[in-house]
Amino acid sequence: MSDLELTNPEVYTYWTDEKIRFADLDRLGHVNNAAFATYSESGRVDFLETLYPGCTAGTGIGWVIAKLTINYLAAAYYPGEVRIGNVVRRLGNSSVVIEQGLFCNDKCFSTIENVLVWADTENEKSRPLPNDLREKLQAYVK
Amino acid sequence: MSDLELTNPEVYTYWTDEKIRFADLDRLGHVNNAAFATYSESGRVDFLETLYPGCTAGTGIGWVIAKLTINYLAAAYYPGEVRIGNVVRRLGNSSVVIEQGLFCNDKCFSTIENVLVWADTENEKSRPLPNDLREKLQAYVK
Amino acid sequence: MSDLELTNPEVYTYWTDEKIRFADLDRLGHVNNAAFATYSESGRVDFLETLYPGCTAGTGIGWVIAKLTINYLAAAYYPGEVRIGNVVRRLGNSSVVIEQGLFCNDKCFSTIENVLVWADTENEKSRPLPNDLREKLQAYVK
Amino acid sequence: MSDLELTNPEVYTYWTDEKIRFADLDRLGHVNNAAFATYSESGRVDFLETLYPGCTAGTGIGWVIAKLTINYLAAAYYPGEVRIGNVVRRLGNSSVVIEQGLFCNDKCFSTIENVLVWADTENEKSRPLPNDLREKLQAYVK
Repeated sequence: MSDLELTNPEVYTYWTDEKIRFADLDRLGHVNNAAFATYSESGRVDFLETLYPGCTAGTGIGWVIAKLTINYLAAAYYPGEVRIGNVVRRLGNSSVVIEQGLFCNDKCFSTIENVLVWADTENEKSRPLPNDLREKLQAYVK
Repeated sequence: MSDLELTNPEVYTYWTDEKIRFADLDRLGHVNNAAFATYSESGRVDFLETLYPGCTAGTGIGWVIAKLTINYLAAAYYPGEVRIGNVVRRLGNSSVVIEQGLFCNDKCFSTIENVLVWADTENEKSRPLPNDLREKLQAYVK
Repeated sequence: MSDLELTNPEVYTYWTDEKIRFADLDRLGHVNNAAFATYSESGRVDFLETLYPGCTAGTGIGWVIAKLTINYLAAAYYPGEVRIGNVVRRLGNSSVVIEQGLFCNDKCFSTIENVLVWADTENEKSRPLPNDLREKLQAYVK
Repeated sequence: MSDLELTNPEVYTYWTDEKIRFADLDRLGHVNNAAFATYSESGRVDFLETLYPGCTAGTGIGWVIAKLTINYLAAAYYPGEVRIGNVVRRLGNSSVVIEQGLFCNDKCFSTIENVLVWADTENEKSRPLPNDLREKLQAYVK
């Protein structure tokens, strides 16, 4: 796994579009820091559900989030569109790392790292990734 | 700076109480991952405003968040209370690291690292921490 | 059913406490209008679950919201506590009206009317209120 | 003002598009009732800012919300798009009523009435609508 320049849109292999909402703003007049986690989720769930429908339903075996790291590079404003780039980085036995970039007007305003574990959602115990899911994820690695 | 056991409530030097809301839940029936960022913000803003009123107002010089790292240790449920522990870890020339622990029924369900920069909120350029603010933060270091 | 002065805290028969969060604010610097709906929900779910556990779980038969009317009387600010008063007003065959008052520092800043229907949550068809639930609600009528 | 059939998309004179977010869901698996208020806000602010830029900034004179009435006609689900129709109904001396319809896959799942007052946002005292704003609103009356 070589280093990727995560502010460069060309590294991303799956894209989701979101709209900045008035409700995402806080009293500083820009998008609230917690809304970045929501944009990340919108991109992540869209990507994971497209790959493997039902994997975020929270029933039986599915994805559990273990760690989220958000880098705040610039403020974002309303109104605006957010493009969320996703790229798969590391495929472990039962986990995956997804890197994301948030873009507004072609400018990256945040990079986000998601560590996800394939687990029994009842007891949150990890399980090996199924082969068909691993193959699908592999197609989005860079 | 020695290592701290962040799941141990005794390491924290400032506490904030929050209530889990029904609205924090998602379709998995537990608290949504992005709500952890909101709990972190509630604790952080309470701590920083108590120390230095007006520093999160977004006018003039104040705190800008640079990085947020959330470790998800367990699910949280409604109804419930969240206790948010804060401890100052690293005081740089113009930045600070605040570690947090989220507790429900005395169990740590998340640890969160906040990297904050003292900056001109207009252009997000960093500024040296004022001496009086530095001294106040110092009292919460461990 | 006589008229109630809904800005008077003495008309309410069940109370819930909430904290205003920094995240509830919008770029106008006060609590966002949609957060009033969330405070209403916090009070309503607390009241209904205390009376009849499981009735808002969304499985089988339970409460479905039919109409929500929010009167905005004054702005609310961070930091602050919200006290949510609930009073049962009309008990129909399969529905109930709950009036609410939102108070901050003993001042009513919003009154809210909730129309709820007892229904099969699968197809949202109304069902007659069970007798034991009706009796419990009756105790909170004014 | 004749009655309008608010579940009919043809009555609306201004449209805004939104995306349902995973974060809008609650533990019942459908869009949370408070998210309807957020969709209403997204449509309302888009409409009002397009007509009269700056009128929702919360500085000086602008719109203040007085009453919001949400009718819940059906559940909404993720993923999905929401189309928000707006139509101006009543133009008073210092107030306006905007009716809205929320549509998903061409089906109306909610109608919402917004009562707004043109006011000094500092003290929330109403002010007469400026003539140019009144004329612009008039073009969207039905």
